[in-house]
Amino acid sequence: MTIPEPTGVHPAWLPPEAFRAIGSRRTLVLGAGLLVGTVRDEVARACAAYGGALRHPGVTGDLDTRETARGDRADGAFDLVFALSTAQSPPDAVQAVRERSRRRYGDAGPGIGDEGFLIARHDGVTVVLADEPAGLLYGLFHVVRLGKPAFGAARPLERHRPAMRLRMLDHWDNVDVHPVMGQVERGYAGGSIFWRDGALSGDLTRVGAYGRLLAACGVNAITVNNVNVHATEAHLLTDRLGDVAAIADRLRPYGVRVHLSAGFASPIALGGLPTADPLDEDVREWWARTTERVYQAIPDLGGYVVKADSEGQPGPFAYGRSHADGANVLADALAPFGGVVHWRAFVYNHRQDWRDRSVDRARAAYDHFTPLDGLFRGNVILQVKHGPIDFQVREPSSPLIAAMPATRVAVELQVTQEYTGQQRHVCYLAPMWSEVLAFRPWGPAGPDVARIVAGAAADRDDIGTEHDGWTADETGCLVGVSNVGDDPYWTGHPLAQANLYAFGRLAWAPWTDPGAILDEWIDLTFAPAETGDAERLRRTLHAVMDGSWRTYERYTAPLGVGFMVRPGHHYGPDVDGYEYTPWGTYHFADRDGVGVDRTRATGTGFTGQYPPPWSEVYESLEQCPDELLLFFHHVPYGHVLHSGSTVIQHIYDTHFAGVEQVAETRALWAKLAGAGPVPPDVHARVSELLDEQLRCAEEWRDQINAYFFRKSGVPDAHGRRIP
Amino acid sequence: MTIPEPTGVHPAWLPPEAFRAIGSRRTLVLGAGLLVGTVRDEVARACAAYGGALRHPGVTGDLDTRETARGDRADGAFDLVFALSTAQSPPDAVQAVRERSRRRYGDAGPGIGDEGFLIARHDGVTVVLADEPAGLLYGLFHVVRLGKPAFGAARPLERHRPAMRLRMLDHWDNVDVHPVMGQVERGYAGGSIFWRDGALSGDLTRVGAYGRLLAACGVNAITVNNVNVHATEAHLLTDRLGDVAAIADRLRPYGVRVHLSAGFASPIALGGLPTADPLDEDVREWWARTTERVYQAIPDLGGYVVKADSEGQPGPFAYGRSHADGANVLADALAPFGGVVHWRAFVYNHRQDWRDRSVDRARAAYDHFTPLDGLFRGNVILQVKHGPIDFQVREPSSPLIAAMPATRVAVELQVTQEYTGQQRHVCYLAPMWSEVLAFRPWGPAGPDVARIVAGAAADRDDIGTEHDGWTADETGCLVGVSNVGDDPYWTGHPLAQANLYAFGRLAWAPWTDPGAILDEWIDLTFAPAETGDAERLRRTLHAVMDGSWRTYERYTAPLGVGFMVRPGHHYGPDVDGYEYTPWGTYHFADRDGVGVDRTRATGTGFTGQYPPPWSEVYESLEQCPDELLLFFHHVPYGHVLHSGSTVIQHIYDTHFAGVEQVAETRALWAKLAGAGPVPPDVHARVSELLDEQLRCAEEWRDQINAYFFRKSGVPDAHGRRIP
Repeated sequence: MTIPEPTGVHPAWLPPEAFRAIGSRRTLVLGAGLLVGTVRDEVARACAAYGGALRHPGVTGDLDTRETARGDRADGAFDLVFALSTAQSPPDAVQAVRERSRRRYGDAGPGIGDEGFLIARHDGVTVVLADEPAGLLYGLFHVVRLGKPAFGAARPLERHRPAMRLRMLDHWDNVDVHPVMGQVERGYAGGSIFWRDGALSGDLTRVGAYGRLLAACGVNAITVNNVNVHATEAHLLTDRLGDVAAIADRLRPYGVRVHLSAGFASPIALGGLPTADPLDEDVREWWARTTERVYQAIPDLGGYVVKADSEGQPGPFAYGRSHADGANVLADALAPFGGVVHWRAFVYNHRQDWRDRSVDRARAAYDHFTPLDGLFRGNVILQVKHGPIDFQVREPSSPLIAAMPATRVAVELQVTQEYTGQQRHVCYLAPMWSEVLAFRPWGPAGPDVARIVAGAAADRDDIGTEHDGWTADETGCLVGVSNVGDDPYWTGHPLAQANLYAFGRLAWAPWTDPGAILDEWIDLTFAPAETGDAERLRRTLHAVMDGSWRTYERYTAPLGVGFMVRPGHHYGPDVDGYEYTPWGTYHFADRDGVGVDRTRATGTGFTGQYPPPWSEVYESLEQCPDELLLFFHHVPYGHVLHSGSTVIQHIYDTHFAGVEQVAETRALWAKLAGAGPVPPDVHARVSELLDEQLRCAEEWRDQINAYFFRKSGVPDAHGRRIP
Repeated sequence: MTIPEPTGVHPAWLPPEAFRAIGSRRTLVLGAGLLVGTVRDEVARACAAYGGALRHPGVTGDLDTRETARGDRADGAFDLVFALSTAQSPPDAVQAVRERSRRRYGDAGPGIGDEGFLIARHDGVTVVLADEPAGLLYGLFHVVRLGKPAFGAARPLERHRPAMRLRMLDHWDNVDVHPVMGQVERGYAGGSIFWRDGALSGDLTRVGAYGRLLAACGVNAITVNNVNVHATEAHLLTDRLGDVAAIADRLRPYGVRVHLSAGFASPIALGGLPTADPLDEDVREWWARTTERVYQAIPDLGGYVVKADSEGQPGPFAYGRSHADGANVLADALAPFGGVVHWRAFVYNHRQDWRDRSVDRARAAYDHFTPLDGLFRGNVILQVKHGPIDFQVREPSSPLIAAMPATRVAVELQVTQEYTGQQRHVCYLAPMWSEVLAFRPWGPAGPDVARIVAGAAADRDDIGTEHDGWTADETGCLVGVSNVGDDPYWTGHPLAQANLYAFGRLAWAPWTDPGAILDEWIDLTFAPAETGDAERLRRTLHAVMDGSWRTYERYTAPLGVGFMVRPGHHYGPDVDGYEYTPWGTYHFADRDGVGVDRTRATGTGFTGQYPPPWSEVYESLEQCPDELLLFFHHVPYGHVLHSGSTVIQHIYDTHFAGVEQVAETRALWAKLAGAGPVPPDVHARVSELLDEQLRCAEEWRDQINAYFFRKSGVPDAHGRRIP
């Protein structure tokens, strides 16, 4: 295999420099299989660039040419060994690390699963051990991340395994360019890397390069088409399956499995049946037969993703069937092949009457799905958006996550910045996701969302601070909606690459500190350690990115109230844009106050969907956290927050402050111009985008402040200009 | 020529029945030429249907076959004579009418111009006389309109000539389907009748039928493409000119001349020049050469329509040139061929800062163009929207119309219902247009807009109540943006056909009562006189349509404030939709009041663009008409109108009333179901649309009322429900 090298494309977190530490050393790879071959090829290329040596016994052909000159079977001749646990007569260092593992984990082994690995440094040799080839691949990228320190002092034995079995990116890519949504729905980084001009992209080099980036941050699954399955894309399931297989071929060497978004009405649209009723025998048969053909073409396909009865997509409701009926017919078809159905819980009434304040979109997923707990097949994964509405900058945790003990639940995050600046604004999302994953639905004594999703929901007593001790049940799934397109920087905004990277890292290890992930990303992407400007760059990027999500929150919709965006494209402010629409996204601002009363006492009762303590905390005006106040309560503008400020003054203050922070960010970034580790093209692109971010932030500030000033009549306490 | 008969298309105001009176009589046509041939063919077809006879001496071939059987040279043998004034040895009745004309108008003749005609009934013969063939064509359709009464008692001599030389419909049709705007920009009646799938429509039968409808209401000019000239459409000027010629060929027999919307940057886009600077010699040369080729292909092309420096279209500003420079370069190219440039005055800053209340879009056209008065060539027509903003349901007259004494000015109306219900709502616009045309910028002693546009602007002392005495100066031009598409009913809403008809009739005779035009349209379209339900139908349609514009006004944006529509598509309410945008369309509602201060005293000074008395009337809060109050003044919700109501109570009352009126309209229409002159398909279509109108009107009512209740806190005096 040749390692994909698309031209004119930014290397993201895998520039050649990231491989210097490995490439300048002597490496032994022990084992066979496709992914072991990938490890070998990566090391070989690194050695070719930096003068190191590689040995991969038992395989002839494409070894690094310098191997015979410098390679040696004596232990001391290797600095780094990747070995499958089944490797015969490995070097002493491997034997020593195996022995250490046996002492710690016993004869049953370390339980690292298909993708985990052990790493230690012993007697001057860094050893990566895995049960399966994928583990060596992830071990390789772990060593890449470590860089030079991987080869320094002795390292104790570390066990690494992913918290989530499936670390998945959903691509909302269309094959055709949609007249309104473009090619990538909610995509802000150009067209699709998979599809072009209504067909498979002619050059899949970039898809391979993408797989490599995904493996390096831990992602192991993707969908290749939009959950809104349009006419052309429906055919990926049948006559255009070859296109999907071609993509799968490119991603397979990096351990990434492909999934397909399937339309629920496919039996009608593709099969010519008169119905898509999931209990109809012909329909079941059609799904079974079709799925069999799919697996003939792509034996390791992950499964299907389905958006049903949602925003106009067809679903089982049309036949009076439940979503369990709907999901199970696909699950039964997939089961013989080990495939799963990702069934999205994003089901709500998008033709709501705004006049009817008793209806609450936040309630919808819970109301729809909790009666179905226990009715789904084992290979159905209910894919739940992390919040109850739709990826707003601030939402409470979806109560559904904790309400389906007998169902596999995946949490869906939005890496693409639909509501967080659309990759024109710096908005590092890992801090938000960390909060999402660390939320404990049953309070401090219960598990957090990450653990629930990882499959340890029942184990509520295990509050698990010793993360290394996690035992995921092999069903966990964290999903992100991809932010990638055919833009040269992959994600439009060069700094948005960090979100993609962080998503993968959090899916692997949800407890990781977002700041530490950012450090990894900085070191890989800019390799600052080698340039002398390391500290300055790191300090600047942390200043620019660490707080960027909260900055974005400050200058947009206040106190958890959400939306206030331009309908349709969702960029920029429009306070009343969704207020009188059927979408169920309201703030109810009037001349006296603002916010949505979701209490049981006087509102929609949504707070009752949480278990205690949150059912009480959110219900209580006194206890409700400030940042979610307007999500749960309608309050007068003069209501005093825990912060001591009134709601109206908080709105003014945060909006002025948010813009000032963007201006500071821009000034900080400007200082990075010229010499240093940030290439001029990246610097220029980010600079342009910061200009737009500042313009847009000012627009938010002025519109939000003007709106609430016009409504409340309360002047700013500090006399600042409100237009 | 065969008369076009598209299949599956509603005949609009020319059903066969409309020709019964002519078709059952004996007609003599005297004269030659293409348009006389059209008259002959129309009469021949009518005779074939209803048993009449036709004689057209000096022409062989396609005469009605019954002519020889019944025709006769004796006067008494004809009921109807169409004769050019040059006709030799006409029947006695013609001689008698000529003599009558001589007695009334003297030897210089009646001055009916190219398109006028005389009509009289003498000794049992109805005589239509004209100087030119077009006059006979318009005379024919006049007789069609008269119907049976044309052949009753003796009729005194009447002189008819159009008030406007150019009675023009601008089609905002694209050749390609625009991804957002569709094929017809602001079109609500399907695709284009000219273009299909990126090319000329394969069947132009419908274009011919359209020409016939236009002639029958008096329209004599159209554009065939959108004023926003996109890439494909730009080529109509050069390599796709043959398509335009083919359309012109179909329309020519009905006296309709074709115009082209041309892109100002065509010298660059089509000519490969580095500039479109109007003062550049190569650019002048390119326009001259290109225009010469255009006229080789279409010798009677009307000219060009240009939208420059407007909403993103290129224009002379890019080169530091004035709009006079820009228009004149095209005018010079067109002059040798008698062509004109329609230069749109719709120039404003669409990137306005909403925070800056000193900028006022309403001022823009006047500010841009008045300094240029006198600088335009004689074949430039400055095309001015009737109001200062953009076709809102209520606007004052554009002050520019009266401010360009040394420039030919055309007024542009919007027949397509962009802001008046998009052909889903009944909104008969003739009453609005009558008000627009009857506005007197210098007060009661000065001419009205119709007369100014007709070319009599200088003649301010002539207050002209005797319309028959008008002497237009052959430059007048009234333009309407077409509401026609390939919908079977031409205009989507069957009742919107009346707007198209009325536009033509008002362009011909601006003083005509809208109710009388509606009667004409009803009689032609439904031929109720023959069905026995005449009175009931007429009463119902008047009840449904006469007040429909004011009903629409009631349930939408109040008191002249405008907009409050959904951005982009402009259908349905969104009170703040444009409030914080760059488009310059604001209402400035806050908790205390609403409206735009356009006074000289404290506002944008727009009132100063009017001559007295309006400069004072609009300036004065006391004198300003209620219906324009919020266009000119920002007032508290408690401000008392001339009507005695407060602003806020007026908003509530009109919105409740508007919806009630739509409900009544629906009930009235329902009673027309079943037997009667309204065909079932027309009845069903209108019924469906009335359902949608009612739904949408309720949405307007509830959103407007809720918005202003939330802001003002003032309850409805009658305690009705405001959501």
